[in-house]
Amino acid sequence: MIGELVMTGDRSHRLRILIACPDRPGIIAAVSDTLYQLGGNIVTADQHSEDPDQGMFFMRIVVQMPETAEQARDQVVKHLAPLKARFGMNVRVSPASRVKQMAVLVSREDHCLKELIWQCETREIAAQIALIISNHGDLEDRVGLAGIPFYHIPVEPDRKSIAERRASALLGGMDLVVLARYMQILSPSFVESWMGRMINIHHSFLPAFVGPNPYRQAFDRGVKLIGATAHYVTAELDQGPIIEQDVQRVDHRQRVHDLKRLGRHVERMVLARAVGWHVEDRVIVHQNRTVVFP
Amino acid sequence: MIGELVMTGDRSHRLRILIACPDRPGIIAAVSDTLYQLGGNIVTADQHSEDPDQGMFFMRIVVQMPETAEQARDQVVKHLAPLKARFGMNVRVSPASRVKQMAVLVSREDHCLKELIWQCETREIAAQIALIISNHGDLEDRVGLAGIPFYHIPVEPDRKSIAERRASALLGGMDLVVLARYMQILSPSFVESWMGRMINIHHSFLPAFVGPNPYRQAFDRGVKLIGATAHYVTAELDQGPIIEQDVQRVDHRQRVHDLKRLGRHVERMVLARAVGWHVEDRVIVHQNRTVVFP
Amino acid sequence: MIGELVMTGDRSHRLRILIACPDRPGIIAAVSDTLYQLGGNIVTADQHSEDPDQGMFFMRIVVQMPETAEQARDQVVKHLAPLKARFGMNVRVSPASRVKQMAVLVSREDHCLKELIWQCETREIAAQIALIISNHGDLEDRVGLAGIPFYHIPVEPDRKSIAERRASALLGGMDLVVLARYMQILSPSFVESWMGRMINIHHSFLPAFVGPNPYRQAFDRGVKLIGATAHYVTAELDQGPIIEQDVQRVDHRQRVHDLKRLGRHVERMVLARAVGWHVEDRVIVHQNRTVVFP
Amino acid sequence: MIGELVMTGDRSHRLRILIACPDRPGIIAAVSDTLYQLGGNIVTADQHSEDPDQGMFFMRIVVQMPETAEQARDQVVKHLAPLKARFGMNVRVSPASRVKQMAVLVSREDHCLKELIWQCETREIAAQIALIISNHGDLEDRVGLAGIPFYHIPVEPDRKSIAERRASALLGGMDLVVLARYMQILSPSFVESWMGRMINIHHSFLPAFVGPNPYRQAFDRGVKLIGATAHYVTAELDQGPIIEQDVQRVDHRQRVHDLKRLGRHVERMVLARAVGWHVEDRVIVHQNRTVVFP
Repeated sequence: MIGELVMTGDRSHRLRILIACPDRPGIIAAVSDTLYQLGGNIVTADQHSEDPDQGMFFMRIVVQMPETAEQARDQVVKHLAPLKARFGMNVRVSPASRVKQMAVLVSREDHCLKELIWQCETREIAAQIALIISNHGDLEDRVGLAGIPFYHIPVEPDRKSIAERRASALLGGMDLVVLARYMQILSPSFVESWMGRMINIHHSFLPAFVGPNPYRQAFDRGVKLIGATAHYVTAELDQGPIIEQDVQRVDHRQRVHDLKRLGRHVERMVLARAVGWHVEDRVIVHQNRTVVFP
Repeated sequence: MIGELVMTGDRSHRLRILIACPDRPGIIAAVSDTLYQLGGNIVTADQHSEDPDQGMFFMRIVVQMPETAEQARDQVVKHLAPLKARFGMNVRVSPASRVKQMAVLVSREDHCLKELIWQCETREIAAQIALIISNHGDLEDRVGLAGIPFYHIPVEPDRKSIAERRASALLGGMDLVVLARYMQILSPSFVESWMGRMINIHHSFLPAFVGPNPYRQAFDRGVKLIGATAHYVTAELDQGPIIEQDVQRVDHRQRVHDLKRLGRHVERMVLARAVGWHVEDRVIVHQNRTVVFP
Repeated sequence: MIGELVMTGDRSHRLRILIACPDRPGIIAAVSDTLYQLGGNIVTADQHSEDPDQGMFFMRIVVQMPETAEQARDQVVKHLAPLKARFGMNVRVSPASRVKQMAVLVSREDHCLKELIWQCETREIAAQIALIISNHGDLEDRVGLAGIPFYHIPVEPDRKSIAERRASALLGGMDLVVLARYMQILSPSFVESWMGRMINIHHSFLPAFVGPNPYRQAFDRGVKLIGATAHYVTAELDQGPIIEQDVQRVDHRQRVHDLKRLGRHVERMVLARAVGWHVEDRVIVHQNRTVVFP
Repeated sequence: MIGELVMTGDRSHRLRILIACPDRPGIIAAVSDTLYQLGGNIVTADQHSEDPDQGMFFMRIVVQMPETAEQARDQVVKHLAPLKARFGMNVRVSPASRVKQMAVLVSREDHCLKELIWQCETREIAAQIALIISNHGDLEDRVGLAGIPFYHIPVEPDRKSIAERRASALLGGMDLVVLARYMQILSPSFVESWMGRMINIHHSFLPAFVGPNPYRQAFDRGVKLIGATAHYVTAELDQGPIIEQDVQRVDHRQRVHDLKRLGRHVERMVLARAVGWHVEDRVIVHQNRTVVFP
């Protein structure tokens, strides 16, 4: 993630390429040769092979092109097309300089939202928060300060679809939706339309303590570590592919209230890391597991 | 745990006192005054109050007495008796210099057993492994080297009670039983007879992945951290009070086999810490949660 | 730290007592009995004894009194006076409900200041930032938003004493001064006047990389962990008593710029923890080392 | 490290290739194409580029060849020769199945040696301890048990060169020398002859506490974390390229003796990881820094 941000050279000429396909001999040779023929210089290449005999192969490449990334993109896509067919590849090509647009959905708790605003402002996360949607009005004043459009869309229990339609209308053009402690369950069709592009922070170390009140559950179980999990949202609640997790040591002195307080620090850091990786095209999902090239 | 081990003075004059009772004003004053009257000097005192109005109060005291611990023990017990009645106390008094005797039950995997042998030999764990029981004969040769009696007690599915009876006969006089990757479920009556004195290492971060094959479960779920949990054994499988937990970061590169390998390091360290705390009388159990004074 | 915050009961009746003295038999008994006689109920008591024969003894007590803390304070101080003389005690008594006032000194980097503002606002740190002083004007606009008075006091190399005099005039009545990435060396007399009440965050794992540009030093040395250290400021640069430290794993991919970025997260968390402990009277300094009762 | 160990396929056909050269376009394409032409299938490829314009480029490849690794090695070396010349490459090719031979030098403390023996026995470290050399006889009995040849070579202050000559005679044919708490300073010429192939464990978080008695230094400084550092040995004491570091949290309760005890756990784990990476050809040294492909 990191070396890349400070490398010299014009980032506007850089493409990021994500590839997934069944593993077979010759993939790296074919791809790197293709890019070399187009005048590209590979800045970073990470790959992961589950098993050379029958597993999947995953690769992330950052390549410096002679022309600007926008111009080069079509060329690269076109020249990778034969390899796509030959190897059964899934390919994604995106200009490194393009700042992704994201929407953040929140309810009443603002610590995750605040950390995202902070890290987007300082460019630690290479994305822009284009808008905020909340089912409560509480955070509006606070958010107003950051100059980000805020939409209060209340969710009434039996009229969820109305709220989702209003949200969908606002979300057009977004690259990513982040559920930053958004305490509403979304409909399968809404989830489906953002598959692989919607990240949630769960306030527990999944799969422990699925469901509501995980800190109460953790306290009752007397755990010695509490955690948080950032994952892509899928139809099944809290079961989507995990991007990042972390924990914090606790002991008998902490009561439920304290676990929540300590948990907030873990939550905001875990979510920020996961979002940062996603917007730099570092995450590939395969069969409910993620490959993260950090 | 730690300061105590290196303090000067004659450890043979030291008692450890564990107290649990409903919280009320005056407990610390009454206990410390009683010990002072007996000529005791409090070396360490840790306490935890859940809630001064209606919660429980827990205390661990190490006290240096004028006479030897064995002699002082009765005096202390006798003089604490009135306080016991007055405050509804649960009290445990034990000489600090007494080396606890423990039995280790294992199956085929030996990493936890080896770590316990190691740390008992170097006196990092203040206990002696008096005997080893295994339902397999595999480890006998290896164990022989350390000079610890090894008993091979096979467990046949429909004749478990016979094996447990044989084990029980050997375990008389033990202070502690450690299940160091012992892959048999024990009967409720056996568990009951060792309540609060039998520690298990579960190869997962409980309560995630309860039951068999937790590393396979962890792999399938794509977690980014794997863990281990040391807990007291209770009738309900994997549900006993947790003493210690720890985790190890993993990523997409590790397959089930690798998770097991990395997990072994976490398991042995977590179990060794839990056993070490127990034998130094640092753990109080209350309502399926532990208070650990480290 | 933690249990205390959520305990029931009226916090306005609570005192915190910090004690340090040479260890001798009877201290705990004498102190707890004195408090009990005054009608106090000990909510939390932590103690540490270096060595019962010749070392120092440290204790922190939180006690619930029948009258308000302000009223009880004088009583407690008066009744502890004989013990003070008898045991050679250093005693500090302060009402738990009193919100400490702190001043934050900054230069150009604002991540530590922002974290402190955040945690004071959410009451995770039990203190109020009364004013901010900077030798640069850069942060004024940003700080203005939080409604905290901001004073720009430029420091000219050969006229440092003028700046310090201006700062001192503002700092009257403060309980604590926090150097949150304040890149100026303070004069011995200024340091002396805030001894034990001025905390600095050093952007390195002290004592490694003392002095300027620690991240450059860390990069050149090829370390695999970077860290941060919060410590009390003493006359000798970067040599004061350490309150808290933490580290972050890095590898060959991170360049100096990246180490700085990752380091900022560690810095703000380490400083916030140290400040939080200090304002809850959890830190005792003795001979350039701290005892922290967390 | 990890995926590789469990991959299916015949490991006897696998080569590991380490490459370092100035970064330029086309390196990956040229290398991967060369291997593809020889019938190789790249199982793992990791690379690191400091800076595409003027920095160094590092790569580690594991490739499955049609013939056995021993046979394929010469072919690969021969066909990479033109690239070597063209790109100014440093290349190392080694059969993955070859178990490296290592010698361990110790003094009186055996915890690091024991951990290495353990992990070599369980094949967690893919190497064989061929012999042990100690300047003390203390450990001989213990080591005898593992069946490893033990050589007691006393070191007299003014006749160091004699001891080193005796050691050198024994070390012929070793791939790696590990200083597992060997408390002797080696001569520059001895160090020179094992450059890049001799690993030391330093019982501190370098560069803090260089030199003797680091735990005493750490205690006196009142640090809140202690650590250990595994590094290649160079002529300058404790200044060689760092391979791995880790830390352990401590607090005011631990005295020097306790820091040593806790430190031993960190030391043995850090050294074992570093040795494990080295013997799997995962470490490249460049300008006193290491690139570790884990």
